[in-house]
Amino acid sequence: MQLLEERILKDGKVIGTEILKVDSFLNHQLDIRLFNEMGKEFKRLFADKEITKILTIEASGIAIASIAAQYFDVPVVFAKKYSGTNMDKDNYEADVFSFTKNTMYKIKVSKKYINKEDKVLLIDDFLANGRALLGLSSIVTQAGAKVVGAGIAIEKAFQNGRLEVEKEGMLVHSLATIVKMEEGKVYFKED
Amino acid sequence: MQLLEERILKDGKVIGTEILKVDSFLNHQLDIRLFNEMGKEFKRLFADKEITKILTIEASGIAIASIAAQYFDVPVVFAKKYSGTNMDKDNYEADVFSFTKNTMYKIKVSKKYINKEDKVLLIDDFLANGRALLGLSSIVTQAGAKVVGAGIAIEKAFQNGRLEVEKEGMLVHSLATIVKMEEGKVYFKED
Repeated sequence: MQLLEERILKDGKVIGTEILKVDSFLNHQLDIRLFNEMGKEFKRLFADKEITKILTIEASGIAIASIAAQYFDVPVVFAKKYSGTNMDKDNYEADVFSFTKNTMYKIKVSKKYINKEDKVLLIDDFLANGRALLGLSSIVTQAGAKVVGAGIAIEKAFQNGRLEVEKEGMLVHSLATIVKMEEGKVYFKED
Repeated sequence: MQLLEERILKDGKVIGTEILKVDSFLNHQLDIRLFNEMGKEFKRLFADKEITKILTIEASGIAIASIAAQYFDVPVVFAKKYSGTNMDKDNYEADVFSFTKNTMYKIKVSKKYINKEDKVLLIDDFLANGRALLGLSSIVTQAGAKVVGAGIAIEKAFQNGRLEVEKEGMLVHSLATIVKMEEGKVYFKED
C-alpha cells in the first residue's frame, strides 16, 4: 500500500537492522485518516471472505482494528495482556513471547466473545516473529472458530513470522512489507 | 445519551454497588457501530471548542478515542501504561492509582506528541475516581498545552471523580451518568 510505504519512508525511524519506530503515526500517536485508508485496503484484500469478527491484541492493534471494523461492519474483540480484577475467569488463553519487551506474557479472551460459528480476521500492527498471531490463532482454535486470515500493517519479511504462521495455513495480507533495513534506510518488497 | 443507557441496561452487569461490567460492548468486545454514535455525540457536545488532538489511555480508551477522532479530524495519542524497549526516553509522566487493579502505575507520553499549541480533548471509557483524567491532565499541563475538556462514556457519579477533576476547572461531558447501582440495577441521572 503506497500511502503507508510513503509514510514509513517519511516518518519511520530505523534503529539498527531490526527496529522500526513508527510511533509518530501508528502506535503512540495515531493518524486516524491513514487508518481509514488502511481499513479500506484490508476490506479490499479480504472482500471475498465472510468475516464475523475482528480479533486483535492490546494496545497497538486496537485502533487499527477498530477503524477497519467499520468497513466490515463487525465487532472487534481485543485480547488482553494485563487483566484487571474485573476480567472474567473463564477465558481462552495463550502464551506469547515478546521480543520487543523480552518477556513471555499470557493473552486472554473471555469465552463469551468468540464462539464456534465465528469467522475471525486477525489484525495487528506488526508481523515480525509471528508470536502474537500464533497466540491469537490458538485462541480462535480453542473456541472452535475459524481464522479467515490476518491483516497486518507492517511486515518485517526478514524475520520468520510469515513462515511460522503460513505453516498453520494462515492467509496473511500485509500493507507494507519490509525486506531489509540498513543504515537508516527501509527497503520494501517490490510488487 | 439514550442509546448508551439502553445498552448498559440491556448488557451491563452490576456486581455489588461499585462495579459495572460492560465488556460485551465497551472494553473487551467493542461495538464499533455504537462507538460511532458516541463519537458523533462527543462532537456535538464539544462542537464549539477548538480541538487539535485527542489524548486517551491504554487500553480501553483507544477504540473510543479513535472512532471519535474521525468526527474531529484530529490525531489520537494514547498514554502508555506498559512501555517497551522501543519507547522514547524523553516522556511526560504521571502517576495514576487504579482502584480496579489496586496498583499505582506510571503513564507516559512522548514529549514529541503534545506541544504547547495543542488544545486537547481527553477521552476515556469510565470516570470513577478521576485518577486517570488527572494523570492525563497533568501530562497536558507539563507540555504547556491546554485541556479543552474530557469526554467520558460512563460516569459513576456516586464516586468522587467529577469533583476531583472539576476542582481543576475541567469541563466534563459524560454520555451516561450513573447515580446508583443496587441489587443488580443501574440508576441513571435524569436529564
